[in-house]
Amino acid sequence: MTAHGSTGTALIETLKARLGEAYVLTATSDIDAHLTEARGLYRGEALAVVRPKDREEVAFVLQECAKAGVPVVPQGGNTGLVGGGVPYGGVVLSLTRLDRIREIDPVNATMTVEAGCILKTVQDAAGEAGYLFPLSLASEGSCRIGGNLATNAGGTAVLRYGNMRDLTLGLEVVLADGRIWDGLKGLRKDNTGYDLKDLFIGSEGTLGIITAAVLKLFPKPHARVTAFIGCASPYDALKVFQRLREAAGDQLTAFEYMPEFGIEIVLKHMPGSVRPLAEKHNSYALIELSSPQKDADLQSQLEAVLGEAFEEGLVQDAVLGSSEAQSQALWGLREHLSEVQRMEGGSIKHDVAVPVSRVAEFIDVATKACEVEMPGVRVCAFGHFGDGNIHFNLSQPVGMDKAKYLSEWERFSRIVHDIVHDMNGSISAEHGIGLIKRDELVHYKDPVALDLMHSLKRALDPQNILNPGKVVAVGENLPSAFPKVG
Amino acid sequence: MTAHGSTGTALIETLKARLGEAYVLTATSDIDAHLTEARGLYRGEALAVVRPKDREEVAFVLQECAKAGVPVVPQGGNTGLVGGGVPYGGVVLSLTRLDRIREIDPVNATMTVEAGCILKTVQDAAGEAGYLFPLSLASEGSCRIGGNLATNAGGTAVLRYGNMRDLTLGLEVVLADGRIWDGLKGLRKDNTGYDLKDLFIGSEGTLGIITAAVLKLFPKPHARVTAFIGCASPYDALKVFQRLREAAGDQLTAFEYMPEFGIEIVLKHMPGSVRPLAEKHNSYALIELSSPQKDADLQSQLEAVLGEAFEEGLVQDAVLGSSEAQSQALWGLREHLSEVQRMEGGSIKHDVAVPVSRVAEFIDVATKACEVEMPGVRVCAFGHFGDGNIHFNLSQPVGMDKAKYLSEWERFSRIVHDIVHDMNGSISAEHGIGLIKRDELVHYKDPVALDLMHSLKRALDPQNILNPGKVVAVGENLPSAFPKVG
Repeated sequence: MTAHGSTGTALIETLKARLGEAYVLTATSDIDAHLTEARGLYRGEALAVVRPKDREEVAFVLQECAKAGVPVVPQGGNTGLVGGGVPYGGVVLSLTRLDRIREIDPVNATMTVEAGCILKTVQDAAGEAGYLFPLSLASEGSCRIGGNLATNAGGTAVLRYGNMRDLTLGLEVVLADGRIWDGLKGLRKDNTGYDLKDLFIGSEGTLGIITAAVLKLFPKPHARVTAFIGCASPYDALKVFQRLREAAGDQLTAFEYMPEFGIEIVLKHMPGSVRPLAEKHNSYALIELSSPQKDADLQSQLEAVLGEAFEEGLVQDAVLGSSEAQSQALWGLREHLSEVQRMEGGSIKHDVAVPVSRVAEFIDVATKACEVEMPGVRVCAFGHFGDGNIHFNLSQPVGMDKAKYLSEWERFSRIVHDIVHDMNGSISAEHGIGLIKRDELVHYKDPVALDLMHSLKRALDPQNILNPGKVVAVGENLPSAFPKVG
Repeated sequence: MTAHGSTGTALIETLKARLGEAYVLTATSDIDAHLTEARGLYRGEALAVVRPKDREEVAFVLQECAKAGVPVVPQGGNTGLVGGGVPYGGVVLSLTRLDRIREIDPVNATMTVEAGCILKTVQDAAGEAGYLFPLSLASEGSCRIGGNLATNAGGTAVLRYGNMRDLTLGLEVVLADGRIWDGLKGLRKDNTGYDLKDLFIGSEGTLGIITAAVLKLFPKPHARVTAFIGCASPYDALKVFQRLREAAGDQLTAFEYMPEFGIEIVLKHMPGSVRPLAEKHNSYALIELSSPQKDADLQSQLEAVLGEAFEEGLVQDAVLGSSEAQSQALWGLREHLSEVQRMEGGSIKHDVAVPVSRVAEFIDVATKACEVEMPGVRVCAFGHFGDGNIHFNLSQPVGMDKAKYLSEWERFSRIVHDIVHDMNGSISAEHGIGLIKRDELVHYKDPVALDLMHSLKRALDPQNILNPGKVVAVGENLPSAFPKVG
């Protein structure tokens, strides 16, 4: 709280006068939850947490902060996993009061929502209008659309529907100087100049503050079938994926990978969960086919492909979840996998992607490299196999000191990210860069690309007041990127 | 040829020394075809046409032009419709020698191609590898991938597969100063910083020179059914579209609109073409359903929806093209519509989009407005109805002087674009801005968006040497935007 002393005090008074005392919070107890992030890896500080009610108030906050030279750190549900919402001085701009669904246009198959809408609320509103809004991720009950946009969120439906970028047609953004760009168009085609929308999506609040968006809606799936297969290796799983993609096309809506270790810890920690196949296998995949057609015969399609793969030994065993209850039980195994890792001690996490053609090789090579590096480490590589996106997490050896284990984070990251990099992959598939990967990005990103990013940052935020220190490292006294653990 | 006199001569010599005499053309007969565009609406001038063979030579050309302060105008197949490739001084950078397919990765379902590849070549190579590259447009036999990328090309498959932006995973770009950005990743998910790819796609050569791209491939459709329907109005056609989208989802791969006038002129000018329905109707739609599943029963699906719509009077008549030959005959009506307009005298053209929910209203309102403005004008509103994208073309009244008619271009554009703008639409859906709509863009675009575009242009091309005078109006002595007609 050392910086911006008297300037800060004057700014707070100005903001209170416009937003109301109740919406400019400074008491420690009021702002405490906004200074940390989900995993407790970082703890920041802030002059205040401001809670504007609409885009005009957001614009006012930005104007005043720009005048005062005070940083602005936007927050939605504060569920991010890369420290992108942690403030290091300045003002936290909470967007939770901008939570209106402004419009649903069923014929255009779009909805216009404000940044503070909870993802689940948006999914439900789409459902009530007879449509599907497909973005689906673990924190959907508390994350907000603005955060989904700022991080170009992914999740389990990307294989079929794309990530947040692909689900967005238009944006409304407040710029660093407080001007409002109204790009809320619901057009499928628009070639009138540079693609501003995609510049802000995924920029993690460092180029502008997204206040609303026009989202795409899709026909609801009326038929669905789920399967759980066991394979001898990720290589076999990849061959099965390829055949399903060719046969089912866009009816293939999920192909999620899990290792035997993942199944083991779900069974151990989740009461009521049941091993889906009789025997243990090296690799598992949760497969879903769906269609808007009520009478689509997805089950025969899936059985045909899996039957053939079984004959050839690519699939060792399989079970079909044809009822909704069976389907949910199978999905449950996948969905609980994130949380149960916490119960196995320290976990060093990586959110990486490689070309789909190399995803099996990546799992294989990276697993062996980590096991050699630290005998006893338990690799939990799982996730969106069909997108080439693996959550490559490493549970600590049984009995090791947790803090000591977590102090190896940087060393393991180098090993895993080097392998990813060699495979022309990405060190952040869906979580973003934020703080935790800012310096890793400098290490791995093409220098020309980094320089372009800096040019864009300077062009759109010349004062460096939008979420400074995140994504691109500009200026001095940057907050430390690697989490303080132990 | 007045500008860059001695500088120009020295530059040409430098380029010849590196690229070879044969690839730096200056004779009028050699460069003439590069100074005009498809419709003959503009004629420019250039110091030379250079034909580098690879990205390193492109980089060299950019470095030298940047040093000399000489503009660079990139060209692919030079098939653009907005004057975006017409040079006004400087050097034309022809990318046709960069025509290698660098890689096809069947498991990743991607191909890496150079900017100079002809679209048809790319489609064919994808086909031989067992995949579909879906971009499809009238000039596919001569347009080049670089131009498709630079203009974010659309066409008839956007409804199902998206436009060029959606079909692209990675890019290689030479920047204004000659540095090369290698962003050729074939990743489905990559959240490592700002979205540079989409900044260059659709920027019409004004921010960088695209030299290669990683493109998405799709499973080939193995089942396909086509229908041609007649409706009493575009409003009824819209209701049919909505039902098909809900029932068939992504199996609905085309919904192309044609008016009775369009059918009339195709029948008149294309020998062998046959009226597909017994009676005349106000509005027609060409519908296609397709699926990668060999045994998908698309015909019953389509018949069910159309049968119900017929019962309710939304469809007045329909014919199904179940054989490949019938299907091709129906597509032929749509595909010939662009060329036959030329045979009906002067045509004032607009490439616009509105939200799909307003596409019928747009056709209705804009048609009436133009008919009131000039009795006898013949409205040919057709195209990608399911994307909300209409080619709103106006054939001259019979017997009117062509030049006199075309001199009304600006007046009609104002009428049509005002209606589009009021409906929150786009004055350029798929052709781009180039020269022809540069000043219209200033008239209609949100001033904040325009200002952002200028900031980006300054950041990436501070010397304003990349395709100057196109898309954004920077500097003085700009070439005139409206075509000189008559």
